[in-house]
Amino acid sequence: MTRTVQTAVIGVTGYAGAELARLLLHHPRLKNHPPVFAGRVDAEDRARGGIPLAEIHPQLADNNGSAELKLEHFSWELLAERGVDVLFLATPHERSREWVPEALRRGLRVIDLSGAWRLTEASNRAVYAFADEGSDVAAVTQTEAVYGMPELHRKQIASARLVANPGCYATSIILALKPLVAAGIIDLEHGIVADAKSGVSGAGKVPSAGTHFMYAADNLSAYSVFRHRHTGEILEETGISGGQLVFTPHLLPIPRGILSTIYVHFTKSQTRESVAGVYREFFAGSPMVRLYEKTLPQIQYSVRTNYADIGFDLDAGGKRAVIVSCLDNLLKGAAGQAVQNLNVIEGWPESEGLA
Amino acid sequence: MTRTVQTAVIGVTGYAGAELARLLLHHPRLKNHPPVFAGRVDAEDRARGGIPLAEIHPQLADNNGSAELKLEHFSWELLAERGVDVLFLATPHERSREWVPEALRRGLRVIDLSGAWRLTEASNRAVYAFADEGSDVAAVTQTEAVYGMPELHRKQIASARLVANPGCYATSIILALKPLVAAGIIDLEHGIVADAKSGVSGAGKVPSAGTHFMYAADNLSAYSVFRHRHTGEILEETGISGGQLVFTPHLLPIPRGILSTIYVHFTKSQTRESVAGVYREFFAGSPMVRLYEKTLPQIQYSVRTNYADIGFDLDAGGKRAVIVSCLDNLLKGAAGQAVQNLNVIEGWPESEGLA
Amino acid sequence: MTRTVQTAVIGVTGYAGAELARLLLHHPRLKNHPPVFAGRVDAEDRARGGIPLAEIHPQLADNNGSAELKLEHFSWELLAERGVDVLFLATPHERSREWVPEALRRGLRVIDLSGAWRLTEASNRAVYAFADEGSDVAAVTQTEAVYGMPELHRKQIASARLVANPGCYATSIILALKPLVAAGIIDLEHGIVADAKSGVSGAGKVPSAGTHFMYAADNLSAYSVFRHRHTGEILEETGISGGQLVFTPHLLPIPRGILSTIYVHFTKSQTRESVAGVYREFFAGSPMVRLYEKTLPQIQYSVRTNYADIGFDLDAGGKRAVIVSCLDNLLKGAAGQAVQNLNVIEGWPESEGLA
Amino acid sequence: MTRTVQTAVIGVTGYAGAELARLLLHHPRLKNHPPVFAGRVDAEDRARGGIPLAEIHPQLADNNGSAELKLEHFSWELLAERGVDVLFLATPHERSREWVPEALRRGLRVIDLSGAWRLTEASNRAVYAFADEGSDVAAVTQTEAVYGMPELHRKQIASARLVANPGCYATSIILALKPLVAAGIIDLEHGIVADAKSGVSGAGKVPSAGTHFMYAADNLSAYSVFRHRHTGEILEETGISGGQLVFTPHLLPIPRGILSTIYVHFTKSQTRESVAGVYREFFAGSPMVRLYEKTLPQIQYSVRTNYADIGFDLDAGGKRAVIVSCLDNLLKGAAGQAVQNLNVIEGWPESEGLA
Repeated sequence: MTRTVQTAVIGVTGYAGAELARLLLHHPRLKNHPPVFAGRVDAEDRARGGIPLAEIHPQLADNNGSAELKLEHFSWELLAERGVDVLFLATPHERSREWVPEALRRGLRVIDLSGAWRLTEASNRAVYAFADEGSDVAAVTQTEAVYGMPELHRKQIASARLVANPGCYATSIILALKPLVAAGIIDLEHGIVADAKSGVSGAGKVPSAGTHFMYAADNLSAYSVFRHRHTGEILEETGISGGQLVFTPHLLPIPRGILSTIYVHFTKSQTRESVAGVYREFFAGSPMVRLYEKTLPQIQYSVRTNYADIGFDLDAGGKRAVIVSCLDNLLKGAAGQAVQNLNVIEGWPESEGLA
Repeated sequence: MTRTVQTAVIGVTGYAGAELARLLLHHPRLKNHPPVFAGRVDAEDRARGGIPLAEIHPQLADNNGSAELKLEHFSWELLAERGVDVLFLATPHERSREWVPEALRRGLRVIDLSGAWRLTEASNRAVYAFADEGSDVAAVTQTEAVYGMPELHRKQIASARLVANPGCYATSIILALKPLVAAGIIDLEHGIVADAKSGVSGAGKVPSAGTHFMYAADNLSAYSVFRHRHTGEILEETGISGGQLVFTPHLLPIPRGILSTIYVHFTKSQTRESVAGVYREFFAGSPMVRLYEKTLPQIQYSVRTNYADIGFDLDAGGKRAVIVSCLDNLLKGAAGQAVQNLNVIEGWPESEGLA
Repeated sequence: MTRTVQTAVIGVTGYAGAELARLLLHHPRLKNHPPVFAGRVDAEDRARGGIPLAEIHPQLADNNGSAELKLEHFSWELLAERGVDVLFLATPHERSREWVPEALRRGLRVIDLSGAWRLTEASNRAVYAFADEGSDVAAVTQTEAVYGMPELHRKQIASARLVANPGCYATSIILALKPLVAAGIIDLEHGIVADAKSGVSGAGKVPSAGTHFMYAADNLSAYSVFRHRHTGEILEETGISGGQLVFTPHLLPIPRGILSTIYVHFTKSQTRESVAGVYREFFAGSPMVRLYEKTLPQIQYSVRTNYADIGFDLDAGGKRAVIVSCLDNLLKGAAGQAVQNLNVIEGWPESEGLA
Repeated sequence: MTRTVQTAVIGVTGYAGAELARLLLHHPRLKNHPPVFAGRVDAEDRARGGIPLAEIHPQLADNNGSAELKLEHFSWELLAERGVDVLFLATPHERSREWVPEALRRGLRVIDLSGAWRLTEASNRAVYAFADEGSDVAAVTQTEAVYGMPELHRKQIASARLVANPGCYATSIILALKPLVAAGIIDLEHGIVADAKSGVSGAGKVPSAGTHFMYAADNLSAYSVFRHRHTGEILEETGISGGQLVFTPHLLPIPRGILSTIYVHFTKSQTRESVAGVYREFFAGSPMVRLYEKTLPQIQYSVRTNYADIGFDLDAGGKRAVIVSCLDNLLKGAAGQAVQNLNVIEGWPESEGLA
């Protein structure tokens, strides 16, 4: 008999939280065991506690019972009463930073969607300016954290108590680069450019000048040039140095989806087949990556799926490649990957509930 | 020699304000006489006073000097020092309500883009709940106000001290209905439906849940059903009674433009030619209305112009018509019509600076 | 033991066909029984026969086997060899008109997504100008046809050999009006306005001036005023007469979704509760309709679901109502409703495979 | 007294043609001298000859007379009769290739918006596979051609008989790179990446699978990787070699606008001020380029203007830069630049009619 898993989602009012709610409510292994849902654990959460989930996310209302689910007031006691095993945090970085140690102390497994515990190097973490930086608790907690990208760390995730779910841009770039770096075919000295474009949901649900329809629509803008927070993740996970990579994010006038165009030089000439072979070998056993061998992926192929789509073109001499990597920033770039991590932890098929 | 006109725009930080700034800066009669610009006259205005206009509206920066124009701190003294003749208020309703009496006292002509002084009937004004409702000053000021739609009130506007610039939805619906009502061919007892759709700029620049890209994009929603503030304007200007009209606004996933689809019954059978004749006669001498006789107007034809576009189709029996009325909510629906009113006041060609 | 059902989809290259493919490939009752897929049965189909389905619809490629499915050359023999029981036709009207009689002769059950067999009255059918109009075969075939809206004809669909799957606009309008007409509370003499707006997928996949991004984007246009083909369906299914309804479709700048705004007068005053009661009673046992009692539905709530969402507002006197009806034109408006009809035919839960 | 210039626009039915028509109709120096307009000089043109321009481009209809302008049947005799001095060709590459020699023979000045005569090197021209490649006429004609970018070739354009109006992507990238290359501060050996994104109007008006709203909307796709036709222009005009540049175009889900993100390494450390100084010096006297010194340009700032907007960020060490270059592909990237070239030829202020 399968052990029942009780999940909880904190921060369900945001976009990633809503996707997580949707995925968990329809997950075949969690039938009849809806998650415990709470808001962002702040004034808003307290105000909204008790209201139906479907009022916050009308698209979650269906006629199968989920319409009755309510947003609850978060408390550690609530989690204990409900017998929560796995805690998903879709909370701001600072909140996750503060709460994860307590959650671990209470024996919960945590899948944290924030950037709080993704980075090993303090220098990379500096952009977050965490209040507890340098404390013993933070240091100990960080050693528990596994970067939650199953394609790279499947085994460690399976036994992790704390999964640091990757950033959306980082996922799209790491999956494209890691196989080639690991195979030693990239000329790192020549430098790598990762020009990435994301839909507006990546900017979060809080209304701001930058998420106003009038700002984003019919527009494209680059931002955080040379200083986006996901840079550290990319460097740590690929082993590329900061001087070898330029990563530029752009805001696309679409709701969701990321396309990263990545430029590399090879140390020696490659063929389509040799490069495809490197990817195929690396992603053998990884059901959530699709390699495009005839065409290039586009945002619309991966949106609303948990797939990371990768394709590439070589120049005539085989020394330069343009790699195109696409995913849905709310799924493979957030909630979908979080559920993929849950599947790995529980020993379920990795793509379960994600088709 | 032409008298020089000195204008001022208060509330230039919003969308209508920006369009007004653009139109006045390029108006042939105002060359070398840029308007005085101020913000919304609140904390934001004070914070932003002195910063270049081009920093707030980068699209206004050109290499012809406008890049140097600065947002100024509003004061009545400032207007006096600069010799301002005509004051454009692109301010919130309450602000216009408060300031217009003072502006008139100081001898300024005012073109007010808010809804503060558009309505003659207190019952229609009730939706605004103005603090000074019922006061003597308000009553006297209201008698000065002329509804600023040149196609209906050209002569009165020419000598008005206070022009109440019409609402965007109201303009699109009044221009479509007034000629037919005036000609007495509509069966009012049968009821009129005005189903209107507007781009997001109509909702203003302040970020909110409803103007978030994720809310508006790929969506359509009806709002303020049976209770939109523009209803009163439509009734007063057309002479239709509240029980004879249903007006429903919708939020379109586009930056700008309004399309109103209007359903009427005729008292007796009409032909394309008889209806076109009514419109042609009514709009003779109105350069900013275009009648479509072969096709129906679409939003994209009028966007970024000051035209109101009107077309229609009749049913086989000639007893029912669907009228389609399009305009740009920021131009003919706001700033463009305001400049059209300035032209009427100054005796310039009505479409000057609006081509 | 459950009988195995073998389906086939003809016309899988279009948008509705692609959605049908996706739904059937993931339908719990059809596991390991993928449909037979063919194209539009014309030159294109012949040219494309044998190519992988995932090449035509890359978003259908997943790592669960569907990537290997191929588009086949249609022939009646093919269907016989594969033991096809239920034939879905996502083909042009004329093609369905021609083929359905042969399919029935061969003992197949047909769910036809075209407009070929939806209309009982020859006068309503006239807009299609079918070549076989008036023939005996056509007349006999028509008597077999059941209008495929389970909320209205569940029982007849269950035993039908030919299901005429409803039009997208028609579905959204009929579901909103039928309960009120059936309850006798609408004042039909006063006339009904149905102002409907649809995303571009409703216009089909063949590139044309009207589906060019530059035409549709940032735009809204009314079309087929007083003469859209879905009018007949609405009249026949609701019992409203042509003189009592005006239906105007508009092209929205979004990929998918329909919102219909419907204006009715009641014979006597109603309350929110009395109207909600009429809907609740009518849709008891209909899992794919959601009644919105506190807010109005929006396009984004129903897009990518098979739900029809209905909400309404009354005027102060309770004599007039604005009803808002939303659905996804490719799902409840086409492929989803087709699968719903399959579920009814097979006696499976009506929402199976549609959650 | 100013000499009157008579212009003609061939290919006015496309997007660039429509913009050209709009600009010339409102150009202060061409008042009362509307251009002669003809279509694409093929079957379509013949079919459409004589129909009003406003029927093809309804947004061009205004009440100032342009509504009466008609599309004419092209013939050399027509141009002679009307006394055409300057011929704008907004025609397909092959058509321009064929016609320009004849136009020059007839003494016309030509501003050609196609790619026919932009390239000096046959190897770069190879991607066009022109039928007359290698002929004497082609060789002689090419020597007459001046690349129509006033910021680089103002003096030669002034006296040119044939202006080869630049490509849209090429304009955005050349303007960003040329000043830095000319100043010798770029480390070319390190390679340059130009990641460019364009709105759909760049793909032309002929409906195709790739310009279908359903393909382009909510999507982003890379195309023509390592083989886009504009690459040759960029190389020839900047002096960068093919091995030193990778240029990747992408299709943005917006109607118009290009943003190019360009990655360079410097030979030695630069500062914001040193790089800005290089640009300022190069563009002194170029009114249609705006340098952004505090922020980065965005597509929405330059759309519907003839400006090329350039901004940049440096990394901490000053050795790498990300340059962002924006323009409107139909204006500075096509019709606007063509009018700018007309201004240069006629000795008028370079930005006349382009504000």
